[in-house]
Order: sequence, then C-alpha cells, then structure tokens
Amino acid sequence: MDKKVGVGLIGAGFIGSIHADSFKKIHDADILAVMSPPPGEAQKFAEKHQIPNHFTDLDQMLALEEIDMVIIGAPNHLHCEICLKAAEAGKHIVVEKPLCINLNEADRMIEACKKAGVKLMYAEELCFTPKYVRLKELLDEGALGKPVLLKQSEKHDGPHAPHFWDVERSGGGVTMDMGCHAFQFFRWLNGNNPVKSVYAQMSTTVHTGKTRGDDNGIIILEFENGVTALAEESWTKPGGMDDRAEIHGTEGVAYADVLQGNSIQTYSNKGVGYAVEKAGNTVGWSYTMFEENWNYGFPQEMEHFVDCVKNNKEPLVTGEDGRAVMEIVFAAYESAGTGRKVKLPFRSSAAKPYDLWKR
Amino acid sequence: MDKKVGVGLIGAGFIGSIHADSFKKIHDADILAVMSPPPGEAQKFAEKHQIPNHFTDLDQMLALEEIDMVIIGAPNHLHCEICLKAAEAGKHIVVEKPLCINLNEADRMIEACKKAGVKLMYAEELCFTPKYVRLKELLDEGALGKPVLLKQSEKHDGPHAPHFWDVERSGGGVTMDMGCHAFQFFRWLNGNNPVKSVYAQMSTTVHTGKTRGDDNGIIILEFENGVTALAEESWTKPGGMDDRAEIHGTEGVAYADVLQGNSIQTYSNKGVGYAVEKAGNTVGWSYTMFEENWNYGFPQEMEHFVDCVKNNKEPLVTGEDGRAVMEIVFAAYESAGTGRKVKLPFRSSAAKPYDLWKR
Amino acid sequence: MDKKVGVGLIGAGFIGSIHADSFKKIHDADILAVMSPPPGEAQKFAEKHQIPNHFTDLDQMLALEEIDMVIIGAPNHLHCEICLKAAEAGKHIVVEKPLCINLNEADRMIEACKKAGVKLMYAEELCFTPKYVRLKELLDEGALGKPVLLKQSEKHDGPHAPHFWDVERSGGGVTMDMGCHAFQFFRWLNGNNPVKSVYAQMSTTVHTGKTRGDDNGIIILEFENGVTALAEESWTKPGGMDDRAEIHGTEGVAYADVLQGNSIQTYSNKGVGYAVEKAGNTVGWSYTMFEENWNYGFPQEMEHFVDCVKNNKEPLVTGEDGRAVMEIVFAAYESAGTGRKVKLPFRSSAAKPYDLWKR
Amino acid sequence: MDKKVGVGLIGAGFIGSIHADSFKKIHDADILAVMSPPPGEAQKFAEKHQIPNHFTDLDQMLALEEIDMVIIGAPNHLHCEICLKAAEAGKHIVVEKPLCINLNEADRMIEACKKAGVKLMYAEELCFTPKYVRLKELLDEGALGKPVLLKQSEKHDGPHAPHFWDVERSGGGVTMDMGCHAFQFFRWLNGNNPVKSVYAQMSTTVHTGKTRGDDNGIIILEFENGVTALAEESWTKPGGMDDRAEIHGTEGVAYADVLQGNSIQTYSNKGVGYAVEKAGNTVGWSYTMFEENWNYGFPQEMEHFVDCVKNNKEPLVTGEDGRAVMEIVFAAYESAGTGRKVKLPFRSSAAKPYDLWKR
Repeated sequence: MDKKVGVGLIGAGFIGSIHADSFKKIHDADILAVMSPPPGEAQKFAEKHQIPNHFTDLDQMLALEEIDMVIIGAPNHLHCEICLKAAEAGKHIVVEKPLCINLNEADRMIEACKKAGVKLMYAEELCFTPKYVRLKELLDEGALGKPVLLKQSEKHDGPHAPHFWDVERSGGGVTMDMGCHAFQFFRWLNGNNPVKSVYAQMSTTVHTGKTRGDDNGIIILEFENGVTALAEESWTKPGGMDDRAEIHGTEGVAYADVLQGNSIQTYSNKGVGYAVEKAGNTVGWSYTMFEENWNYGFPQEMEHFVDCVKNNKEPLVTGEDGRAVMEIVFAAYESAGTGRKVKLPFRSSAAKPYDLWKR
Repeated sequence: MDKKVGVGLIGAGFIGSIHADSFKKIHDADILAVMSPPPGEAQKFAEKHQIPNHFTDLDQMLALEEIDMVIIGAPNHLHCEICLKAAEAGKHIVVEKPLCINLNEADRMIEACKKAGVKLMYAEELCFTPKYVRLKELLDEGALGKPVLLKQSEKHDGPHAPHFWDVERSGGGVTMDMGCHAFQFFRWLNGNNPVKSVYAQMSTTVHTGKTRGDDNGIIILEFENGVTALAEESWTKPGGMDDRAEIHGTEGVAYADVLQGNSIQTYSNKGVGYAVEKAGNTVGWSYTMFEENWNYGFPQEMEHFVDCVKNNKEPLVTGEDGRAVMEIVFAAYESAGTGRKVKLPFRSSAAKPYDLWKR
Repeated sequence: MDKKVGVGLIGAGFIGSIHADSFKKIHDADILAVMSPPPGEAQKFAEKHQIPNHFTDLDQMLALEEIDMVIIGAPNHLHCEICLKAAEAGKHIVVEKPLCINLNEADRMIEACKKAGVKLMYAEELCFTPKYVRLKELLDEGALGKPVLLKQSEKHDGPHAPHFWDVERSGGGVTMDMGCHAFQFFRWLNGNNPVKSVYAQMSTTVHTGKTRGDDNGIIILEFENGVTALAEESWTKPGGMDDRAEIHGTEGVAYADVLQGNSIQTYSNKGVGYAVEKAGNTVGWSYTMFEENWNYGFPQEMEHFVDCVKNNKEPLVTGEDGRAVMEIVFAAYESAGTGRKVKLPFRSSAAKPYDLWKR
Repeated sequence: MDKKVGVGLIGAGFIGSIHADSFKKIHDADILAVMSPPPGEAQKFAEKHQIPNHFTDLDQMLALEEIDMVIIGAPNHLHCEICLKAAEAGKHIVVEKPLCINLNEADRMIEACKKAGVKLMYAEELCFTPKYVRLKELLDEGALGKPVLLKQSEKHDGPHAPHFWDVERSGGGVTMDMGCHAFQFFRWLNGNNPVKSVYAQMSTTVHTGKTRGDDNGIIILEFENGVTALAEESWTKPGGMDDRAEIHGTEGVAYADVLQGNSIQTYSNKGVGYAVEKAGNTVGWSYTMFEENWNYGFPQEMEHFVDCVKNNKEPLVTGEDGRAVMEIVFAAYESAGTGRKVKLPFRSSAAKPYDLWKR
C-alpha cells in the first residue's frame, strides 16, 4: 500500500479514546472516521480528536472507500456482527479483546475474514507493553532458564461502562474482561504451547447489587510443556489500576509491575489532578503515572497492526489467538461451575461463558 | 509457676538453632536440655548454646524433672510418637509445624495431651510475625473493610535437611511443608471461620531427581464466610527466601513483605557474608536482612508459649489448629490427585497426604 | 550490681513515653520514679505506666536511694543543670540527644560525671537501630569496600512540643534537633575518625510564623580519612516520618530505609488508625509501620545502658561523643552564618548554636 | 520548511549512537550525514545506521546543502569551534551538554548563532524525560504547593570515553559532566528563577590513578525565590546508572526514579544479557530496564528540536540556558576551591572550570 492506511474507529467510549490518542503518534495511518450509534457521541468525539467523518450507522462508515482498516471498540456482544459486516465490506479488522462472546462467533469471524481476504487482528496490548516485551526477552534469552510458573494479574475497582456489568452483553465478569488479557499473555510468553487444563475460582463479592458476573477470579492454567500459569483478576481492588506479571524459571525469576512500578511516589495535601486510571483518593500518598498509553503499549500495538495492513505482514496476534483465549475463558467458567479442572480442547455450545458458571 | 519454665529441645537441626537463639531473649525460661539421636550432635549443640544437659535418648531427657515443656523440632513422621511420650511424661508440648503426618496421629496427640493435662501448642510463627500481626490489626480495626481475598506465599529454592525431600518422612512436598504456614495464617486472619473447600495445583518441576514430592503448589481455599484465600508455595525460587502476604478487603488492600520488604538494598563487588536465608549469589545486588528471627516472630512465639505454661493461659495456636491445618493439607493433596475442589470436612485414612496425590 | 537497676525518668513527654515503653522489655531494670514539673503530669504518667513514684521536684526524686540511673528527657536547655545535680547525687546518667546547648555546658557535664564517678551515657538510638546496625556490619565486613560517602536523612513535618520551636530553649532548629542524629551516626559508621570540616545550608521556609529556627538543613562533613558525609534534615516534609541512610563505598553501595522501607503498603477508604509517626492523611495509600520502638532501637539502647550500669561496662555512646556532636552542630550554624566551610576543631563561646547563624 | 529536516551528526561515539537511534522514530527528519575524524569511524557508523553520507572532515559535511541542522556530540573542548563553523555555514545547531568549557566560549557561540540567524539548541534531555516531565506537571498544577527543596542525582561508576577523564578536554570531572544535567533541571523546574549562590563539595576518591578531576560532587544551589536545590553526582557508584529526582514542596513531596524505578526486578543464575547502562554484575539480582532512550526522553528531545527548526519555534532549552548552566558550573568549582558559598552572577576568565578548584 503506497498511501497511508485509512482507519475507521467503531466505538467512541473509553477504549475508543485510547485508540484515537494512539493513532496521533502513528505516521503511516490516519483516522478517517468514527462510528457510534448514540446520537451526537460520534460527532463530539470527532470534533475532540479532529476526525474528518463521523457516523451513527455502521454501514455508512463501511461504505467509505478510503477506509482500509476498522477497529472494533464496541461492547463484546456486538463484535461478531460488526466483524462480519466489515469483512464483507473488505476492511481489515482489529478487534478489541475479548474476541467475541462464544466459540461459534469466533469461528464465524475467522471464516468470514479468511473468505474476504482481510486480516483479523486481535488487540491484546500486553503483547506490546514495553515492560512485558522486555520480560519476554529475558525469558527468550535464557536468563531465567525454562519457565516453571507464569503469573499475571490485573486489578482495579470496576469497569467504566454499564455493558461490562451486564453479563448478557459482556458474556461474563472480570474473568472474561481481564482474564482474557492474562490468557493471551501466557500463551505468548510460552510460545503458543497448547493449554492442557483450566481451573477457575470465581466469586461475586462487592458488586452483588450491580452485577451477576464474577468480580473476582483466580484461574490456573496447565500447559502441555508442564508450565503452570496463575491469573488473578479483580474488579474490587481500590487504590488504582494494577497490572503486574512474574516469570519463575528454573534459573531465575523476574517481577514486572507496569503501573505502580513505573510511577512517581507522591504525597499531596491537596490531591493530584490525575494519578493513574481509577486511582481513588489522591490526597496523601499516591502513585502518579506518566504516559500511560505508551507504557501499556497501545500506540505500539496499533503501529504494528497498521504495518501489517500497509505491508501485508502477519500480525503478532490474530483471530485464532483470540479464539484460543475464548476457549480458555469457556473452560474457566465451566470449571467455576463444576469445581473441576477442565481439560482442553473444550467445546461448548453455550451462548456465553457466564452460562456455564451459574446454571 | 513460680520458677522459670524449664525447656527441653528435641531436635538439633536448623529449626533447633532458631529455637535456641529465640530462648536467649526469654527471661522466664531456661533451656535445660537438648536431645538428638545422632551421636555427638546434641553434645555439640549443647556446647555451642551453653545448654547444661544433652541426650541421644528421648526417655532420658523426659525423665528430667525440672523440664516443664518440650519443643519438638524433629522430622514430621516422628512428631506423634515423641508427643505421646512427652505427654505421658507430663511435659507441656510445643510442636513445630506441621503437627504430624496424618489425621489419626493428630487425634491421638490431642487426646493424649488432654488426658495428661498438658498443653499442646502448635508453633505457627506467622501468627507472631510482627509485620503480619500488624496486618491482622489493620483488618481487625476495619481499615480494610471485610476481607475478600487473603494471600500468602513462601518461596525459596529448597529445604535444608534430607528428610524434607523424602515423602515417607515428610508426608508431602512444599504444600505440606510451607502450605501449612499459609493455611493457619488464613484461619487466624479470618477469625477461625471454617474452610468450606480446597483446590490445589501441584507439580514437581525442578527437583525431579531429588524428590517425588511437589516442589511447587498453588492452593485455593474457600471459607464459609465467603472469603477466598490463595497460597503459593515453591521450593524452586532462586534469590533468597520470600515470605509475603496480602489482604484485599471491601474498603482497602494491604501488602506485607516480611523479608525483601524489610531489607537493606545492597550492591557489593565482593559479596555479602550473609544476606538472607538461601540468598543465592550476593555478588552484585542483594537484599540484606537484619534480625531475621525477630522479624519472623520466633522469640515472640516462644515467649508466648512460655507465658502459657508459666501462667496457665490458653495458647494462641493449639493442637486443634494444627489438626485443622492438617485436614486442609489432606484435602489439598486429594484435590491435586483428582483435579476437583474438595469439600470440608474431609476425612482420610491415608497414612500421609502425599498418598492422595500420586496414586 | 546484684539487684535490678533502679531507673528514674526525668520528663514525661513524647520521648518519656518511648523510654517507659522501652523499659517494659528490659528485665534487668525497673522504672522506680518519674519526675516532671507541671502539676499532675508525672502522676498521670506514673499511673499510665504503673510507675511506683512520681515527683514534680527533681531533688526529691534524686533523693531516692534505690534509683541508680536517671534518663534525661527534658528540653535541651535544662540538660546541663539536671545532669550536674544527678551527678552530684551519684546517679548514672543517660542524656537524650542533643547533649546540651553549648560546649561549655558539655565540658561541665563531662567533668561533673567524671568527678562523681558516674557514667554519662549519650542516647543516640541510631547506633542501636537494627537496620543501621546491620548497615554498619556490611561496612565493617568489607562488603562495601572503603567508605566514600555516607548519607543520613531524617524528615517529618515538625516536632511535637513547643520548646522545639523556641530557639532559646532548643538552641537551634532542625539542624540542632535532627542533625545531631546524623552527626553521631556518621562518626559511629566511620570509626570515630575526626571531622575535618563542616558546611551547612539552612533555611526557614514553611514555619516562619512559628519559629526563628531552621526548618530545613543540609550539612556536609569532611572526615580526616577522606570520607564525605551528607545529612539532610527537614521539619517540612509531609507524609510521615522519614529516616534513611546510605553508604557508598569503593566496592559497593547500600541503602537502608528504617520506616517506609519496613512498612506495610496499605490503601484504605476509611483511613488507618495509626500508620507511622506524623503520617498525615491515611485515607488512600499509606505506609503502615509496626513495632516502631523496636525498629528505632530504643529498647535495645536502654538495655545496653542498663547493662553498662549493672556490669560496669563502657557505653557505646558517651558524653564525649555527645560533646563531639555538639561541636559539629556549632560549626554547622557558624557555616550557615558565614557561607564558609568551617574547619574543626571549632570552639565558640556562643550561648547556643543558633546565635552563630542569624547574627 | 516543507521538506523533512536534514540532519548531520557530529560525533560517532556513545551519545552519537543515542542520537542515531532517536532519529529512527522521528518522521520529520532524516539523518543525512555523520562526521567523525578518526579514520573509518564515521563510515562504520554510517553503515550500521544506514546514513547516506559520512565524513572525517567537518567542513565537507557542512558544505552539504541539504543539511539543515547539526548535532554536536563531540568532546567538550571542541563544542565552541564546531559551533562557530556550523553557524557560519548557516546550520541550526543542537549542542550536547555541557555547552562548552568556558564562559567566553559560551558568549561567542550565542553571538555567532544570533548573527547567522540560526537556532542554538541546548540538549538537556532531563527536560524531556517523561517521568520528569510528569514531575514538573505535578509541581505546576500545585499538587506539591510551592517548592522548598529540589533534588536530582546521577550516579554511575565512570564514563565511557577517555576524554571525560582528561580535564584538559572535559574542563572538569563529574560536577561538570553530570552536574550540568542537574543545574538545568533545577532551573527548568523552578521556572528559570535566577540562581543566587552555589556551594560545592568535590573529591577524587576512587579514580585517583585515572583522573585529576572530581569523581564525586555535592552541589547546593540557592535560588532568588528561596528554593534550595541539592545535586549529587558520582562516577564511583557500582550497580548501574542511577538517575533520580525529588521535589519537596509546602504541600507535598514527590520522588521520581527514572531507571531502577521503572525496571524489572530480575534474579538470574546465568546473568542477564543487558540490564541497564553500566549495570555491573547481573548474575543474581539486577534491575532490568526497557526502552532506555525513550525513558530518558532522547527521541522526544530530538523531535522537539526538529519541530523548532521545521516550524521556526523557540526551543525549550537554548544556548542561553547552556550558558547559565556553565556559570553555575564555574561557581561550583570556585566554591570547591575556596570552601565558600559563591554568589551569582559569577564571571571568571579561567579557561576551564577545573582550574578554579585545584589551583
């Protein structure tokens, strides 16, 4: 592709803003349009981010010929439908995590993109988070020996938008929403070795009035190469977003903390304007973060996807990866429902993971 | 009791040294004797620690009238037999963790001590570790709200003495040896609320040539009051002993790291004489600990037990606690063997926990 | 001395409470009396700490024969007079830092104690702070090579009692009050090598309405063996007491943080009852300390002084050390007044250090 | 300027590599040439970094018309001469720190660039270091109140190239080489408020066989608005580069650590390929850094300078800033030589700062 990659954003919420900010640093692409159904939302977003076109209707945006690639930042239950339409319109597709809400949808998305000859790229930013990229390098260079235990944890006090709390739209709670990060992170660290079994412990502890979904989850994966992985996810941890990982190997151990571990330690009698996502109280001590998007790897991720489209490269994270993650998510909810370790491959016709937990 | 409490040490190994050092700070007790069967070991130990009597035979030591209390620091499989003899001899008894190697033994020990009218005290030092005592105070004062998730982890690169590696003598691997710390710690933090279920993931990863036991374990407990607890144990982590805990509550979260979190950050081109237990390489950066025994709470624990004997008080941690921990350990090995969450109460006639894992 | 050492406390304020708490752990001594002039204060203190005698008059307390040793925890300008009386009464003497308010007083105190045959012990607890004791061991064992730079810093947001703010009674501000800790700490680390020169930068920044004294000070010492030492002191730092030290040597470097570096990292929506001395706001993140007295080394220090009295040993820190510290303090204020490095030995007839700064 | 900015690198050493790497991320500029006198060095560098032209002669490179801007990464004593030639050739100029080696040179450089109508930009990357930019925002937003004390420290175990150790070429030791970072950092944080006085303590401790220059320096600045600033610099600290800063304000305090504070905590039995600049031993514990150039702010700094040239904007850091820093450096060496606080403005005809110290 000689020209810059034309990008269309689908969704104008929290993650949409991150996408828009990320593209400001990418020279080989321009955001040409944003689409969001609620009246006025896309327009306001377009004005704020100086995007030339805005739509409330997906088909209208997909009709724009200069759009080469769309990014789906919509509620989970809409991913599949949007993806199928975009594929049909011949657009390359980036899907925010999780890929969709069931395995049948995942299969249809992968199939549709293959048929349409467009790329299906799965937006797992942890594979681009600079500190985690370094962590993987430490593993790959042998400094830690062979991996024994992988850990990753994401914890905050609950998501932004209402659709996360509604399992009909989200498919599940925190294990679905943030466990999916950990699962792809583990697969990536472990060279896509197949997962052998999944065990999950879930509970709804603090937000019982707000959701039927799990607000805390602990998930244990066993890989075929003998590696164990431990994911911890929470929507009930106060004090700011937490995102950390560990690799325990036969010859070493490494601890990486993306947020608190990169921040300024601050005490303020007046409070800090902004410290970190979901910081809570900032009067007194807080951990003040800088350049969050960069430290998460969002611009790097989008730059990679643009490069894949522009230069016809294979993405680092694909629809197949997103599907594999979804299989683990289903197995996790099955495990939480049965109290048993669930062996993979696991196939379920459930409409969404949550249905396997509280039957 | 008007006089000082007379103490007899059973065992002259690593933990015996900690006991001897701890008693040097306790004014209401004197160590009067040490017993260890290997020829010369007790004598050498007695000389080093200026203990007036030493024995290779238990009965001879128990015959000393001035001994009021014995401390069992022997391999796990000997705890029960020693305890029964000591009870019969009318001595108060402190048993190092774990209490014994099966539930039948536990019952007999409790029964024997009751019958003999002596105290059976269970040496879980985490209930006396100053930083963890403070952690419990934070929970009890309400600063963290109601607990949602408790975590504790102990990791190092493998134990000192050969009997730990031999499951016939130890009863199990790292989940038995160090999981028992976490289990009693959780029970104590959670006000002895009953455990509802146990799930365990175990593996033998690095020390396959050395032991059949688990060298890594992850254990999840569910309590009846809805609290989840996560224990992580390892005998494969290089870089020095790790002992840390977290409380995640509805109103707060607290992180406590007993060793690295209290240490001096040191860089040395020459290496440090001693940094911390099992420190590994100390050329370059290391975390140099101070007053380890005090920071673990060993002298405080023994002072408490002496006070219980001298002033006829109820110990903070009893044989019944040790038995409850053993029940969790059995359930953990059953779970690792079956891949299922195991409900409590759990009764097993297995001779040792390990037998439930690899059948 | 066959019996327990009988102790008399002089002063019932903040430091007096620390003394009383510290002695609860010391078996070879009993606090027999407390003296404080304000009506009712000593009585209340005695009741709280179960001390058998209380006085508002010093002479009456000194008349108690069973008192072997007194501890002076009074405002600085009273140290000398109290010391002279106590020496005359034949009591061994512990003086809280700083020793007194001028060099003439220091000489008279040392002389009087020598003449009376009583010990003059200088209470610099940093020489007993367990983490700093470990730091000195690292230096002494050679792990850090030869020292190049020593650093120590104490910072909080201002002292408890009014007399600290009044330079007539205190003799000076933060450099006098907390710099004296650093100066003795450096001398101790550096094997009492003589100080060659002193430079000081002082300012009154935040508490201008409350004191004429310095509320921030930076002091640089040069030792004859070439070591440089840097002290930083502040009465304006919010967020809780800070006490940390560093040794930079030819072969290594070590960082020790006594408070934040030993604490529990806590987030609370409700606030923590007590986190650390002068913690400020504890809603949100705070650093929750445990066993502060022990971690500062107060009981260890008093135990040492009791041992010196009971067994007629030479104290680790003496009146001569306190005088040497006072000489450095005078040189520091002279330097702040002149903008020049001041060479030692330095003799001044000024009534108090402060007079040399703002003339 | 419509076209991309054409860039010429002067110098192919350590800092030259950082420049070359930085420009790979800048879309509005291309490095068109590199110049370095040693035979073959520029050629090798050009090949490695795919730079189309390479020279051993400055005049030849300056003759290239497509070069709009040069970056001087040469030894300090050559800065002035190169700058004068480049100005005469009509090139915009970025000078690496320090600006030059005496105040006379500084004046001539500023004058020459003014006359030639080219920009003189001073490369102080700390003003672009993302974490420090955030630190300044915290100050500017008022979260910390008014500044009372600013601190910055850079420490490692000694520089790469021989010219740093030779005071004839460098002008001075660590206070010249790294103190200049701190001085401009303080000026920037403090809104370019004028410096009122400078005190400096310098010593040559470890590298006496290698240099006459100072390998340790402590420098205290007083600003006219009452702010105190403390810089600590060392060429003798083992264990990897250290770059940290603090702001102590009337309403808060903030601690920022650029390297160790952003790194992965790693233990490796085998050692890490690369941990951080000058890491020393990496067997055992180390602090593994990621994306160092970005975390220092080098690409951001160069992007800013390119933007200034392309769009004719005023640089954030100018030749005048570089001169002001040089004045502080001279005052620091004067102070180290006299043992007195030196008042600014300070003018000296010394050929280099070092001459004022050891006369």
